Amino acid sequence: MSVSIIGTSHSKFGRLEDKTIYDLILEAGRGALADSGLTGEDIDAVFFANYGSMDFNNQSHLGPFMVEIDPGLRFKPCVRVEGACASGSVAVYEAIKGIESGRYKNVLVVGAEKMTSLNGKGVTATLAKASYMPLEGEHGYTFPGLYAELGKGYMAHFGISEEELADTLARISVKAHTNAMQNPLAQMQNGSNMEYALHVSDKNPMVAYPLKLSDCSLVSDGGAAVVLTTTERAKELKDKVVEISAISMMCDHISIVEGKRHNWEHEAIRRAFNKCLDETGLTLADINLAEVHDCFTINELVIYEALGLTEPGKGREAVLDGSVFLGGRLPVNTSGGLKAKGHPVGATGVSMHVLAAKQLMGEAIGAQVEGAQNAVTVNVGGSGGTNVISILRRVK
Amino acid sequence: MSVSIIGTSHSKFGRLEDKTIYDLILEAGRGALADSGLTGEDIDAVFFANYGSMDFNNQSHLGPFMVEIDPGLRFKPCVRVEGACASGSVAVYEAIKGIESGRYKNVLVVGAEKMTSLNGKGVTATLAKASYMPLEGEHGYTFPGLYAELGKGYMAHFGISEEELADTLARISVKAHTNAMQNPLAQMQNGSNMEYALHVSDKNPMVAYPLKLSDCSLVSDGGAAVVLTTTERAKELKDKVVEISAISMMCDHISIVEGKRHNWEHEAIRRAFNKCLDETGLTLADINLAEVHDCFTINELVIYEALGLTEPGKGREAVLDGSVFLGGRLPVNTSGGLKAKGHPVGATGVSMHVLAAKQLMGEAIGAQVEGAQNAVTVNVGGSGGTNVISILRRVK
Repeated sequence: MSVSIIGTSHSKFGRLEDKTIYDLILEAGRGALADSGLTGEDIDAVFFANYGSMDFNNQSHLGPFMVEIDPGLRFKPCVRVEGACASGSVAVYEAIKGIESGRYKNVLVVGAEKMTSLNGKGVTATLAKASYMPLEGEHGYTFPGLYAELGKGYMAHFGISEEELADTLARISVKAHTNAMQNPLAQMQNGSNMEYALHVSDKNPMVAYPLKLSDCSLVSDGGAAVVLTTTERAKELKDKVVEISAISMMCDHISIVEGKRHNWEHEAIRRAFNKCLDETGLTLADINLAEVHDCFTINELVIYEALGLTEPGKGREAVLDGSVFLGGRLPVNTSGGLKAKGHPVGATGVSMHVLAAKQLMGEAIGAQVEGAQNAVTVNVGGSGGTNVISILRRVK
Repeated sequence: MSVSIIGTSHSKFGRLEDKTIYDLILEAGRGALADSGLTGEDIDAVFFANYGSMDFNNQSHLGPFMVEIDPGLRFKPCVRVEGACASGSVAVYEAIKGIESGRYKNVLVVGAEKMTSLNGKGVTATLAKASYMPLEGEHGYTFPGLYAELGKGYMAHFGISEEELADTLARISVKAHTNAMQNPLAQMQNGSNMEYALHVSDKNPMVAYPLKLSDCSLVSDGGAAVVLTTTERAKELKDKVVEISAISMMCDHISIVEGKRHNWEHEAIRRAFNKCLDETGLTLADINLAEVHDCFTINELVIYEALGLTEPGKGREAVLDGSVFLGGRLPVNTSGGLKAKGHPVGATGVSMHVLAAKQLMGEAIGAQVEGAQNAVTVNVGGSGGTNVISILRRVK
């Protein structure tokens, strides 16, 4: 059973002062429904992705709030899933299984997060609850600190110098900001430059060595949604059809500091991506673009290696030879990524699927990768505990 | 594709001072795995049900923590779902779809909640986040207040007197406590009596008119788990097999005070139960016992009517004629229910499935309903926004 995307919506990401979590949900859900041409009556189930509304918005149990998107959704199953910053792709994954089970024909997936409501106070503490608190959060680790562990582990394991890593990460950061300048929905559209991103300064402080502010993604509000159906039905309904040809979810030990998994690589991403390749019969060379989880620039670097774009420890090569830039062999985060597009955590995975689908339809939100046929999305929760990889393919 | 239960576990419910949320998860998961005879390697996915660990335990993103249950679970998909107090049954529902999709053969479902860690402070506020905050929680409604709306709506719509309702609810409360005396895992095992439950007193204050303390369920710690597989495989593996013959999830408007749904009945439960009956070909007369969501005694009463045990507004008859008592035509909450067994919210739906399955195996946790062949579980999230109904059947 093959599943395709027949409707998408994507809000502006950023500090959206006049939008509540409820607004973000309703707009995303109604937008994708309208884009699909279906009504609420046609939808058999809704999946909602959100990480922290219990803290951020003093509101949980938002599954049934999906009923407010459209009167036709009353008495439908509406399930909230949470997988930290991978919640969005987990929702897509569950939705696909729902269609594969034969229970559903058409499914709506909504991801939304309203993070700026705390006005900066406590956002980091709320996010830290996605770490393993007894060994991480309770010892003062926040996510910059946990991804700093990945950075330090990467340098130590592969013998990468501080200077070399800083240069690589700065290039990844500048790439994100440069790409975001073409994305009207991106949170940061003013660009960046190596002079800023490479050096510690008042405006670019060291947040958690070796990660500077320029290596960190954003605190954002935003929503995104997709409508899914069988590929067979999608081809009847739409002129352009993008299939989710494979999706794989793999969990690993929640803690990166405990030592049960390596702090220099993402083995679960490598395995999950290879599973997707096996299922589709594709190779990396067939993939034309990637939207990956650059919550911190070091993570994008390590993901290059998990995807097999370079040998382990050699991710820098993909930056230096231009592979991951627009026009390269695998443009990564043409949207600006979490770094510059923004990272409303529950929406991020759904956003990745929207962005990849729009690229493959030739209707990119931002810079278009011409003639792209296949895309990959890589969505990570926590420091690598939850990992969801999708391969999307234009099939009509 | 039919799905059956091949392993169960159920912790003691109560104030478990020496158990963390992590302990509850590991014990429940390992217990069900051991009972199934399978290993982690055999399990294709884990679903985890929890409502409020972000608040209660300062920990979210517990999906990947499932990997700690067994080394064989590493790199498997582990999904946390949240549907307030129906989270446990939502997890069972998602697990069944996973098997129906063909992606999974064997699935572990774990539900756990550690509520007493807040020492009473803020538990009600955290639970209130399952209401619709803008119209309910933010106006001071807590769940006793919201179910009081159901009580008042019920009296007004059906013309039930205060005295009559109080008498009915007291009888339901005493039944729960009496049944719990036989359940070694129940939180409250000292029984109750009509003299106490019928009257407002220092020990039984009015919490939210018309609900007294004796009408309210408990704040509890606890965990429960099941292992599911295809019925075909279950029959090969086990001497006694209980199938989940039908499961239906229906969401309704999250708010009970907004007026978009009736405050005197649960239409979604009625619809979902009828869907389950249609799918199984059974009638209510074929069901031998029920575990239902008596978060407040008024809810149990309204559920009798949603199940068709009596006409709407006549639920009292099922109490007075003994139908819902042990030995009656449909014993309800033989375990003691949420009222006396305890209500660790994320575990509750899984607990219901464990209790029903053990009854049908003739190995009841608590009083045995002799010769029971079919059971129904009714799990509710919020004030009726999320509703999941299962029919379980002994098939071997």
